[in-house]
Amino acid sequence: RTFSIAVIDGDGIGPEVTAEARKVLNAALENDDATLHYTEYSLGTRHWLETGETLHDETLEKLRSHDAILFGAVGADPQDQRIPSGVIERDLLLKLRFELDHYINLRPTRTYPGVSTPLASTEDFDFVVVREGTEGPYVGNGGSLRRGTTQEIATEVSVNTAHGVRRVVADAFARAVSRRGHLTLVHKHNVLTHSGSLWRRTVEEQAALNPQVSWDYMHVDAATIHMVTNPQRFDVIVTDNLFGDILTDLAGAVSGGIGLAPSASINGAGTTPSMFEPVHGSAPDIAGRGIADPTAAILSAGLMLDHLGVKDAAGRIEQAVNAQMAEWAERNTGGGLGSAERGDAYVSRIKAL
Amino acid sequence: RTFSIAVIDGDGIGPEVTAEARKVLNAALENDDATLHYTEYSLGTRHWLETGETLHDETLEKLRSHDAILFGAVGADPQDQRIPSGVIERDLLLKLRFELDHYINLRPTRTYPGVSTPLASTEDFDFVVVREGTEGPYVGNGGSLRRGTTQEIATEVSVNTAHGVRRVVADAFARAVSRRGHLTLVHKHNVLTHSGSLWRRTVEEQAALNPQVSWDYMHVDAATIHMVTNPQRFDVIVTDNLFGDILTDLAGAVSGGIGLAPSASINGAGTTPSMFEPVHGSAPDIAGRGIADPTAAILSAGLMLDHLGVKDAAGRIEQAVNAQMAEWAERNTGGGLGSAERGDAYVSRIKAL
Ligand SMILES: CC(C)[C@H](C(=O)O)[C@@H](O)C(=O)O
Ligand SMILES: CC(C)[C@H](C(=O)O)[C@@H](O)C(=O)O
Repeated sequence: RTFSIAVIDGDGIGPEVTAEARKVLNAALENDDATLHYTEYSLGTRHWLETGETLHDETLEKLRSHDAILFGAVGADPQDQRIPSGVIERDLLLKLRFELDHYINLRPTRTYPGVSTPLASTEDFDFVVVREGTEGPYVGNGGSLRRGTTQEIATEVSVNTAHGVRRVVADAFARAVSRRGHLTLVHKHNVLTHSGSLWRRTVEEQAALNPQVSWDYMHVDAATIHMVTNPQRFDVIVTDNLFGDILTDLAGAVSGGIGLAPSASINGAGTTPSMFEPVHGSAPDIAGRGIADPTAAILSAGLMLDHLGVKDAAGRIEQAVNAQMAEWAERNTGGGLGSAERGDAYVSRIKAL
Repeated sequence: RTFSIAVIDGDGIGPEVTAEARKVLNAALENDDATLHYTEYSLGTRHWLETGETLHDETLEKLRSHDAILFGAVGADPQDQRIPSGVIERDLLLKLRFELDHYINLRPTRTYPGVSTPLASTEDFDFVVVREGTEGPYVGNGGSLRRGTTQEIATEVSVNTAHGVRRVVADAFARAVSRRGHLTLVHKHNVLTHSGSLWRRTVEEQAALNPQVSWDYMHVDAATIHMVTNPQRFDVIVTDNLFGDILTDLAGAVSGGIGLAPSASINGAGTTPSMFEPVHGSAPDIAGRGIADPTAAILSAGLMLDHLGVKDAAGRIEQAVNAQMAEWAERNTGGGLGSAERGDAYVSRIKAL
C-alpha cells in the first residue's frame, strides 16, 4: 500500500518539527507493507511574502489528489509588520478546513508521563474533543455597515445545518463507543436557542441510535469550570466550531501539553485528504534553533497513520512516545533536549519495540 | 441620603444569601448618613409556577423606579420537569439586563484568603472582567428554517454597534486608570473579522485618550490558557458578551471562588437601576438548609453601595470580609459554617472596625 502525502511544513518551527515527524514515520513503517510518498508544498508566510498569494486554486486542486496532508505550523511573526494579522490563518488554514470539508476537528487531550500541569491535582485524564470544523461562527458570514462612524454596526452570523451537525455528532458517538462510552454535548442553548436546539435534538437522535453511550449536556461556561476542577469526567466532548476552539486551548493548557497536543482535521466521508497538525503554532521566537519539541507533530503523524488504516504503525508511534516520555520522566531528563535528539530517541524506541 | 432598593431574592439559596447581605448592609450603614429602603419583588421559579409569568411589564416599570436592584439567584431545579430549561434565565435575568440597558457586566476576580484554588500555583491575583452586557450573540437575533427536517438551518447573529462597544470600552479604560493601568482586549478578530475589527478600533481610539493605560490584545482561546497559567498578568479584561460569559466562569473557577464571586450589571449612564448579584446560581441541591455561603451576595451588596456612591460603607464591607476570611484561614475554621454564622461574623467585624 502506497499513500501519497502532501507535506506543508510551513513557518517558524513548522519545518523543524515536521522533519522529526517524518523520521519517526519512516521508522514506524520500516517493517510495514505501507509506504508513504511525500510531496512538499511551500505555503505560509514565506510563500505569501514571495508571491503575495496564500493558496492558489491550482495548489488547492493538487492538494486534493493526496491521501493526507501532514501540516507543520503556519503564522507570521507578530513583530513582522509586513504580514496583516490573520491573513495566513484565514486564507490558508481555515480555507483548507472549509474547502476540504474537514468537518471533524479532532483534539485528543491527555496528561503525559512526567509533564506537570498547571492544576494542583495530579490525577491523569484522557478525553477527546470533537470540534465541528466547517460551520458555526467560522463561516465568515459577517458584515459591517457605516464602518468607521458612530453608527457602525458589525454582525457575525453563526450558521448551523442539520447536515453539518448530524455528521459530526454521529462521528463523536462512534468515538465514544470505542472509548469509555460517554459523550458530553457542550453548547449554550439557554442563550443560543436556535442552534442550541438543533445540536440538542441531533444528540438526542444519535443517542437513541447508540444506547450503549451515556451522554450529558453542559453549557460552555460551566464546561470551563469542569475542565479545571474535574477534567477526568470527560470522555468525548462534541461541540461547535467556536466553543471547540476555546475549549481545546483550555484543554491543552490544563493537560500541560499545549506544546504536545496533536490534532486532526478529518473529512469523515473520505472524499478529500484529511490534515494532521500539532495544536501549537509556528513559535517564531524559538524557530530555527532546533529546540522545538516535535512530540505534537509526531503524535499528529500517528493520527494520520491511524486515519489511513495503518493501525499497527500508528500504535507503534503512540507506544514509543509514551514509553520514551515515561523514561525521561523517571530519569528526570528530557528537559532541554533538542528537536532532533527527541526525534531520534523516539526512533530508537520504535526500533526496539 | 435614602436609596430605594428593589430586592429580588429569587429561587433556591437566593433568599438565604440575600437575607445575610441585608444584615451586613444594615451593619455597614449603621453610622452612615445613607439609608436603604427595600421593596421586595417575588420573581423567579415560584412566581412562574404560580402565575405563568416571568416578568410582567408593570413589574418591570416598577423596578425602573428604584435606585438599584439587589438580586439573589434565579433558576429552576433541573430535576423539575415543570419548568422549561432556560426560560427563567432568558425572560427574567437576560430581560432585565437588556431592558435596563446594563451594558457593563462587571466581574471582579481575585483569590481569597485561605481559599484554595484548582491551580498548582498559590500566587494571588486580582483582576476585573468588564463584559459587555447588551449586545453580541446574546441579542436573540437567531432563527431556524425547515426545523426538524434534514434541511434544517439554524442561525445566530451577533450584533455589535459602535455605540455599544464604545461605552463599555470607555468604562473599562476608566477602571484600568483607577487600578494598575493595564487593559486586555479579548476577542477572536482573526475569525470574527467584522466585530473584531470594531472592537479593536474602538480600543485603539480609547487607548489614545488614555495614554496612561497600557493595553494588549489576546484571542479568546489564548486567554483561557493565560487564565490557568498566569492569571496574574490580567488587570482589566474587556470583552464581548459571550466571551465574557465563558471567561468569567473560568476566572471564577481558577480563583477558587465561583461561590464567592460578586457581580454587577451596570447602566453606566445612570438612567436605570443597576443590579448586583452573586455569580453563583440558585443551587437547588443545598437550598433551604441554611448552609449556603453568603459571601458572594455580601460582596455584591458592597459593589452596590460603591455604585450608589456610599463609598465608606462599601469599603467597610470589603474590609470586613477580607479580615474575617483571613482569620478563618489562620485559625483553620470557617469550613462548615452556616449562612447565618458567616453573615453574623461579618457583621461583628464591621462593628469592630
Ligand atoms: C489560527 C486559528 C484560525 C485557529 C482557529 O481558530 O481554529 C486556531 O486557533 C486553531 O484552533 O486551530
Ligand atoms: C444564566 C445565563 C443566561 C447567564 C449568561 O449566560 O449570561 C449566566 O451564565 C451569567 O453568566 O450570568
